[in-house]
Amino acid sequence: MKVKVAREAHFNAAHRLFNAAWSDEKNKQVFGKCNNPNYHGHNYKLIVEVKGEINPDTGYVIDLGDLASLIKTEIEDRFDHKNLNLDTKEFKNLNPTAENIVVVIYRILREKIDNKFELNIKLYETERNLAEYGGE
Amino acid sequence: MKVKVAREAHFNAAHRLFNAAWSDEKNKQVFGKCNNPNYHGHNYKLIVEVKGEINPDTGYVIDLGDLASLIKTEIEDRFDHKNLNLDTKEFKNLNPTAENIVVVIYRILREKIDNKFELNIKLYETERNLAEYGGE
Amino acid sequence: MKVKVAREAHFNAAHRLFNAAWSDEKNKQVFGKCNNPNYHGHNYKLIVEVKGEINPDTGYVIDLGDLASLIKTEIEDRFDHKNLNLDTKEFKNLNPTAENIVVVIYRILREKIDNKFELNIKLYETERNLAEYGGE
Amino acid sequence: MKVKVAREAHFNAAHRLFNAAWSDEKNKQVFGKCNNPNYHGHNYKLIVEVKGEINPDTGYVIDLGDLASLIKTEIEDRFDHKNLNLDTKEFKNLNPTAENIVVVIYRILREKIDNKFELNIKLYETERNLAEYGGE
Amino acid sequence: MKVKVAREAHFNAAHRLFNAAWSDEKNKQVFGKCNNPNYHGHNYKLIVEVKGEINPDTGYVIDLGDLASLIKTEIEDRFDHKNLNLDTKEFKNLNPTAENIVVVIYRILREKIDNKFELNIKLYETERNLAEYGGE
Amino acid sequence: MKVKVAREAHFNAAHRLFNAAWSDEKNKQVFGKCNNPNYHGHNYKLIVEVKGEINPDTGYVIDLGDLASLIKTEIEDRFDHKNLNLDTKEFKNLNPTAENIVVVIYRILREKIDNKFELNIKLYETERNLAEYGGE
Repeated sequence: MKVKVAREAHFNAAHRLFNAAWSDEKNKQVFGKCNNPNYHGHNYKLIVEVKGEINPDTGYVIDLGDLASLIKTEIEDRFDHKNLNLDTKEFKNLNPTAENIVVVIYRILREKIDNKFELNIKLYETERNLAEYGGE
Repeated sequence: MKVKVAREAHFNAAHRLFNAAWSDEKNKQVFGKCNNPNYHGHNYKLIVEVKGEINPDTGYVIDLGDLASLIKTEIEDRFDHKNLNLDTKEFKNLNPTAENIVVVIYRILREKIDNKFELNIKLYETERNLAEYGGE
Repeated sequence: MKVKVAREAHFNAAHRLFNAAWSDEKNKQVFGKCNNPNYHGHNYKLIVEVKGEINPDTGYVIDLGDLASLIKTEIEDRFDHKNLNLDTKEFKNLNPTAENIVVVIYRILREKIDNKFELNIKLYETERNLAEYGGE
Repeated sequence: MKVKVAREAHFNAAHRLFNAAWSDEKNKQVFGKCNNPNYHGHNYKLIVEVKGEINPDTGYVIDLGDLASLIKTEIEDRFDHKNLNLDTKEFKNLNPTAENIVVVIYRILREKIDNKFELNIKLYETERNLAEYGGE
Repeated sequence: MKVKVAREAHFNAAHRLFNAAWSDEKNKQVFGKCNNPNYHGHNYKLIVEVKGEINPDTGYVIDLGDLASLIKTEIEDRFDHKNLNLDTKEFKNLNPTAENIVVVIYRILREKIDNKFELNIKLYETERNLAEYGGE
Repeated sequence: MKVKVAREAHFNAAHRLFNAAWSDEKNKQVFGKCNNPNYHGHNYKLIVEVKGEINPDTGYVIDLGDLASLIKTEIEDRFDHKNLNLDTKEFKNLNPTAENIVVVIYRILREKIDNKFELNIKLYETERNLAEYGGE
């Protein structure tokens, strides 16, 4: 009897899209206004989904308070109110698209969450743009 | 050609998290403020997903008005404005975590919905906390 | 140059509507399912609005981090995961309708927020039901 | 490493539910108020999900700006501010239920999106009613 | 001690914008795609705000269940799943813009709600477009 | 007969809070993580409210399509995907708090909107933080 639980969190960050191997012209052509050298930013909405058996003693798959604390320590403290390109080691050499951010978050949390649980991450860059990764 | 349709509903209920086999101390330690003996409560948001073939005569997988009526009769009338621990037979001896509630709702509706349809249930306890069960 | 700022917060609580001066029949007739003696509950969404001059040094009307802390200490710690009728002195003898709750919250915060600021409180009991009080 | 990205769009349209092979009585009985011969309407919310490998040069699965343009050209320009029954060839002879609309949108976009990508379409007819199709 | 309470409701309707005193060319030029002779439609979200004294016996300004019933009888039954131009007497000779609709709803409800209460009506035509009228 | 209409828009920008007259220590103490010298960012949600008489010929207070175009030209093109501190003349010497941004937006739009209309601006910096200015 496998149940999925999910917890929502948020972080606000600056970034720019940029490929260091390309000329400024090509960067501007491909990434448009997202390439602004002075950065822009987003309120990222993060949803962490964990799937597993219900523990018969607690009725929990996982304590969502513990999961919220883990997200706080591992993700919010790392990325909230940061410049993803300048302030984080994860995106020093990796373009901080929503796709790359969601994979990075998956990998950080995957190491901290017991492998008996399936993990899936959703990241809204805006209300209308989403990236999602489940380790596939 | 399988299409999924979904219908959202709501119920407002009181509950407390509690394991009768444990001491008060252990209950408090594990469930924290959710263990308050005087109960607290939530606006539960329920999403019932039904997947199946489109009926070529109606263009419906299932009449969502009928599905809404079923949710009203089987779930809202049972749980809305109730104390889950005291007023419902389902949670007399089952801890009303979001995980256990979503499984109970799945089982109630599974008996009432034709087996040619797949069924999946999502239950938001708060805007940020979700449990989901699909019979797996 | 007066600007209004607002901060949203949440608390989850159990309550029942009840007038001790009335018979059980009259209570049931007037309050319907909200009169359930075993309580039901809600996720309350609270919006605290503060209006005043912008401080030219900070660019703030009021530090929203400070306001969030005040809401946490004065409102969330008092009402979150509580039974409003049983666990709080404010509603021992006051019917915890959304209207009465919003007035109580206004009065608690009004004492803690400098009178140079106008204060207005919105309280959503459900997504579709709101009460609002501004001291009028 | 497969990531899903999604883009939200909207269109506002009139429609009525109707089966030309049936009598007026049967149409009214089955489709109720949705059968109104003078039409009613909805704000449709559309979510287009595309799943594939991250392009290592761009960090994109697919450029969401390009996807937004495709949705604009192929779906919004076709259905927005239209009467689905009268103004569109797709629903001249097909009942415009949410289920049929989501399949039509899937087929239109499937022809325009590279087959290396998986495609899934969600369509909200109202906040509480959804249809979803992924080509199954 | 005046408190405002509010109740949200919904209706889905078809309409077109049109001034009978104008040529087709002028109608098309002014109203653009909203002038489509075959109609388009919306999910209208309605918020009815009532302001008054709290009744000390009930703790209510007004019973929101009664207000919901009034909105159902007077507004939803009249406009839901209707063509505003063809099916309603209110918009036979009045252009059904959001502005005109909100004034019509105000006047219908104003006659049914005790004058000791202030009344204010908000009407969302889409998530991003609102009209509001308070009798001014 | 005065009706208020409103239009929602969005822009995504980077910023930092900073007072040039203060030491780095004081800036950090007052603005905390919002003072990050490398910037962070937000998805700003903007609501422009215009109040006036309904034009009897059009049924509009103001054409919301025209208002949307004005917001696009005057606000989105100016601030979207920009670094407010570095890329805009408005915040070269003005701390880009939500309060200051909402006043700047009010003044820009007030010059472009006929004085027969009242104007009020709401700006959400996050889902939970709002600033609002109406020229008072």
